[in-house]
Amino acid sequence: MSSTKVDLAEYLFTRLRQIGVKSVFGVPGDFNLTALDYVAPAGLDWVGNANELNAGYAADGYARIRGVSALVTTGGVGELSTINAIAGAYAEMAPVVHIVGTPATHIQGQGLCMHHTLGDGNFRLFADMAARVTVAQTNLVDADTAASEIDRCLRTCVMESRPVYIELPTNMVKARVSRASLGKPLDFSIETDEGFEDTEADLILSKIYASKQPFILVDGFTSRYGISAEADELVRETGFPTSTTPFGKGIVNESYSNFYGIYAGIAGPQVYMPWARGCDLVLRLGPLNSDVNTFGFSTIPDPKTSITFERDSVDICGTRYQNIHVKHLLRRVLSKLDRSSLPKYTPTMDLGDPKQILADLPPTTDDEIIAHDTYWRRMSNFFRPGDIILTETGTPSIGGRDFVLPPHTTLINSSIWLSIGYMLGACAGAAQAQRDGMTTTMTDEGLDVVETAKKGRTILFEGDGSFQMTAQAVSDMIRNRLDVIIFLINNDGYTIERWIHGMKADYNDCQPWRYLESLDYFGAPKDDPSYPVLTKRAETWGEMNLILADPTVQAGKGLTMVEVVMGKEDAPDVLKKLVENVSRRSSGEFERGPTTRTGDKKEALVIPTPDEKAMKVAG
Amino acid sequence: MSSTKVDLAEYLFTRLRQIGVKSVFGVPGDFNLTALDYVAPAGLDWVGNANELNAGYAADGYARIRGVSALVTTGGVGELSTINAIAGAYAEMAPVVHIVGTPATHIQGQGLCMHHTLGDGNFRLFADMAARVTVAQTNLVDADTAASEIDRCLRTCVMESRPVYIELPTNMVKARVSRASLGKPLDFSIETDEGFEDTEADLILSKIYASKQPFILVDGFTSRYGISAEADELVRETGFPTSTTPFGKGIVNESYSNFYGIYAGIAGPQVYMPWARGCDLVLRLGPLNSDVNTFGFSTIPDPKTSITFERDSVDICGTRYQNIHVKHLLRRVLSKLDRSSLPKYTPTMDLGDPKQILADLPPTTDDEIIAHDTYWRRMSNFFRPGDIILTETGTPSIGGRDFVLPPHTTLINSSIWLSIGYMLGACAGAAQAQRDGMTTTMTDEGLDVVETAKKGRTILFEGDGSFQMTAQAVSDMIRNRLDVIIFLINNDGYTIERWIHGMKADYNDCQPWRYLESLDYFGAPKDDPSYPVLTKRAETWGEMNLILADPTVQAGKGLTMVEVVMGKEDAPDVLKKLVENVSRRSSGEFERGPTTRTGDKKEALVIPTPDEKAMKVAG
Repeated sequence: MSSTKVDLAEYLFTRLRQIGVKSVFGVPGDFNLTALDYVAPAGLDWVGNANELNAGYAADGYARIRGVSALVTTGGVGELSTINAIAGAYAEMAPVVHIVGTPATHIQGQGLCMHHTLGDGNFRLFADMAARVTVAQTNLVDADTAASEIDRCLRTCVMESRPVYIELPTNMVKARVSRASLGKPLDFSIETDEGFEDTEADLILSKIYASKQPFILVDGFTSRYGISAEADELVRETGFPTSTTPFGKGIVNESYSNFYGIYAGIAGPQVYMPWARGCDLVLRLGPLNSDVNTFGFSTIPDPKTSITFERDSVDICGTRYQNIHVKHLLRRVLSKLDRSSLPKYTPTMDLGDPKQILADLPPTTDDEIIAHDTYWRRMSNFFRPGDIILTETGTPSIGGRDFVLPPHTTLINSSIWLSIGYMLGACAGAAQAQRDGMTTTMTDEGLDVVETAKKGRTILFEGDGSFQMTAQAVSDMIRNRLDVIIFLINNDGYTIERWIHGMKADYNDCQPWRYLESLDYFGAPKDDPSYPVLTKRAETWGEMNLILADPTVQAGKGLTMVEVVMGKEDAPDVLKKLVENVSRRSSGEFERGPTTRTGDKKEALVIPTPDEKAMKVAG
Repeated sequence: MSSTKVDLAEYLFTRLRQIGVKSVFGVPGDFNLTALDYVAPAGLDWVGNANELNAGYAADGYARIRGVSALVTTGGVGELSTINAIAGAYAEMAPVVHIVGTPATHIQGQGLCMHHTLGDGNFRLFADMAARVTVAQTNLVDADTAASEIDRCLRTCVMESRPVYIELPTNMVKARVSRASLGKPLDFSIETDEGFEDTEADLILSKIYASKQPFILVDGFTSRYGISAEADELVRETGFPTSTTPFGKGIVNESYSNFYGIYAGIAGPQVYMPWARGCDLVLRLGPLNSDVNTFGFSTIPDPKTSITFERDSVDICGTRYQNIHVKHLLRRVLSKLDRSSLPKYTPTMDLGDPKQILADLPPTTDDEIIAHDTYWRRMSNFFRPGDIILTETGTPSIGGRDFVLPPHTTLINSSIWLSIGYMLGACAGAAQAQRDGMTTTMTDEGLDVVETAKKGRTILFEGDGSFQMTAQAVSDMIRNRLDVIIFLINNDGYTIERWIHGMKADYNDCQPWRYLESLDYFGAPKDDPSYPVLTKRAETWGEMNLILADPTVQAGKGLTMVEVVMGKEDAPDVLKKLVENVSRRSSGEFERGPTTRTGDKKEALVIPTPDEKAMKVAG
């Protein structure tokens, strides 16, 4: 055995450790068992999820915090159980390395009628499906190319911030591959044309200097492109009025006086959309143009007066420049920025200051019921710097748009895939990342992996219907002794669906669980001082305030579950407003909508936009 | 509104009701809500599962009992969450009609950046994936063809006994389609060449009459081809020695004196495989050639001495005859069968009589621990005619091969897809089918739908690791007040994986839940006489015997959960034997194995077979 060689599985897991993975998500299965022997020796922790969908969701949540994650499933059954999570990671740009244990190559070659297949001798079927929702794929059948194939996939995963798919046949686990490349870090450098970028930076600065009513709109892919710090600096340095989209919330420091909360288009304050549309320059960072994230496409600005920063291109007032990298470009813009040349502009109308709205809320009374119109804003006072806050799709994600976040908090929501149940799994992954403590950032020179102490708490706002989808993620939290605070909004069914269609319909009901028994049921330790568990229930603000003031709850150590009882038909105003707007449109009030008449208007929420092309994202 | 027209969704659900669907599985989502308004008016019950994977598994279980089932999910997120279940239904031939609510056609046409998509304007992606695991697909975009498209898919689903995929855009739910074809039942007639079949029947009979050592091997697709009754008659009328495969267990009346249990090849009694290989005629019905079902391909007989009945073809001693239908052919064989011409043959060696082995078991003692070597056989005495018995993949499915079943019982196991967690979901579906009571049988004239009373109990044997995958299926059982008895085998982790690889490895552990709290946690009623719930625990045979003798448990009314504690490293003998055999093979004892050397022998379990081609199933 030569020391210049390592087992293929050792290479794979060592590489993953190098690029910032610390915990490996997944479920054991007969085609991946021997590979799992290599997890611990590579310095990685095996998470061992209760099922594959939750493993995938957790890997996604971990990747959003750490910049990369790894997931191991078994071929066929395991990988298909998690493909919804992988598709979500693709849609919302979470860099998940999905490793699938597959039958030995000679078994595949002979087309044997194997278990975990359809029995038709086709061993490419699931890989074909995976290729539709991943940005790189490889099948490790050749020891000579396996190491470089792994490197290629891992690099693509991190650079494109999207999932990749690696097949590892059982007989290749111990295949000997060259150790050489493990000696140098994986290459994440980006080559761009510096002269080109310099010209673009000047053009962008000239537009900024010339603007009279500028606006910065920060969207969620900003964090995926690794430019959160640059976005924050741009907002701070220019002082321009700034909003985020729902997906972009939390990227910009919300304590800035020029921060105006979420731009909610047709669902926002009446003055805001006309004001935004009147701006002569919109700086748009990392946009996600989904119907949900743009409030029926209503917040997509006119490209003629916008500068839109994508990862590998910038659109300057209608002309697209490629061959740049956004991080380089933004840094160049910031380094050249002359503050004295900036327009001095402050909106004359009240666009709504989230901090002021929060401060103006009346104090609660003890017997006040907990309602959507104030619950979310009021929860802001519970948050602290360093917290990771997750809001499940449904009333929590909509309500959570009202949060006023302290600096250095991270908000995770879903803004295009919207798979309910995702957030509970993602929360387990985010809490694992929070504990692992290491932060991975992409720099000019490559990937910067810094080990840091745990910074804050992990706090989840979950719906009851969503919780039922993936409840065993609580088991994963307990098994891995993760610190999580869960606020479970119990409103007796799928309330967001009720508002869309079928307010009273039985099909929007769900089985009433005894949610607070979760911790006990999933095997939480009793009386273990190193892992305290706590359950609480609130129907009124009197009860809620007591809970929020409890130092044990505040500490966020161990597992805390708070059942928050809310009205079955209560919903955040913005949801009601969207439904109302759609009704107005269907009565003809909006006349510039799509030409084809829709038979089911409520689900589309499509309203006029100056940029109809932006609604369609090229592949 | 003309009475000659109906809404498209009404057509769809009415047709489903006509062909034998009574309950509709699924989860509400914004793209299917309006369609769900049509479920109840069509005389169907909405099940409302806690998540889509469980809904898919339940639909599969229901389809195995009733001959067809329906599943409704929402596009993208919902359908991908259940695609593992659909693939399993394809692999094991369960006729599931999967209806997916999709965005309105004009939204798709414009390629809008919609939620529940990848945001790339591609609305065909998920349908492309579904096409790989279904036998028919349609996208209901045209009111003129929608009714006939539905009919085509439903017919294919039932005839091929495999899942189909129907996309229903929201704006098409109320599209008006012709009511005309609802007036006559869907056409399930089969056209074959009667003269041809007559010749084949004679050829088969001549082989039967000429045989000296005949053997009947009944496999699981027999029930999917609708020929269970014919198979049973063939076994009874010929008196030939008969076994089933694991997948075929329960199809033949096990009380016949010529029934010898499961043919387990290399894992069976030492005399059996040589005897079976010495037979000069094997009648093989509805085979599934998977490694697991054939014990590493060791039970696949030599085609030169076999008559193999597939749905649309028969292979007579090496020559394949197509253009028959197996039901017609078998009936013709049976009607022409001359009992006086049959060879009189009784095996001279002891092939093992399951009933005798059971009778010879020593009585239990009160402090005897519960071990795999006797547990499964002993449970046979608990079963009654009419029961549906399900054994989860893992030690339960392997152990359950030892059951001695009363007549008219149904056994459900998985014999190629082997997705753990499936059986708990499938059990909910089977219990729903048991309650719905109607039986659908394919006859020469078409589909025969007979409403019958509920016949027996639904009894599940589940593993702890598997249970965790899909635990919320218990919620679905409670919500729908289904009568189920669950024996939960708690052996502290993935024991079958331990035997394959990693006996002591942490990754084969799972989080210890407090399983008996399931009923309470998932919201079972307390003190509702119409739906009693009961939990029990047994570590010894003394405790187990008390439980089995309890009239309340025996009644199988309401929900009963029995936690059966077994050794962490205990396993059925056949599993140990398989592992041992593989070790022997890897040491060279079996020399006729596949030519390519395998690096991971334990997972393949491939041993020599006279018919290597049979191991590979043509697509």
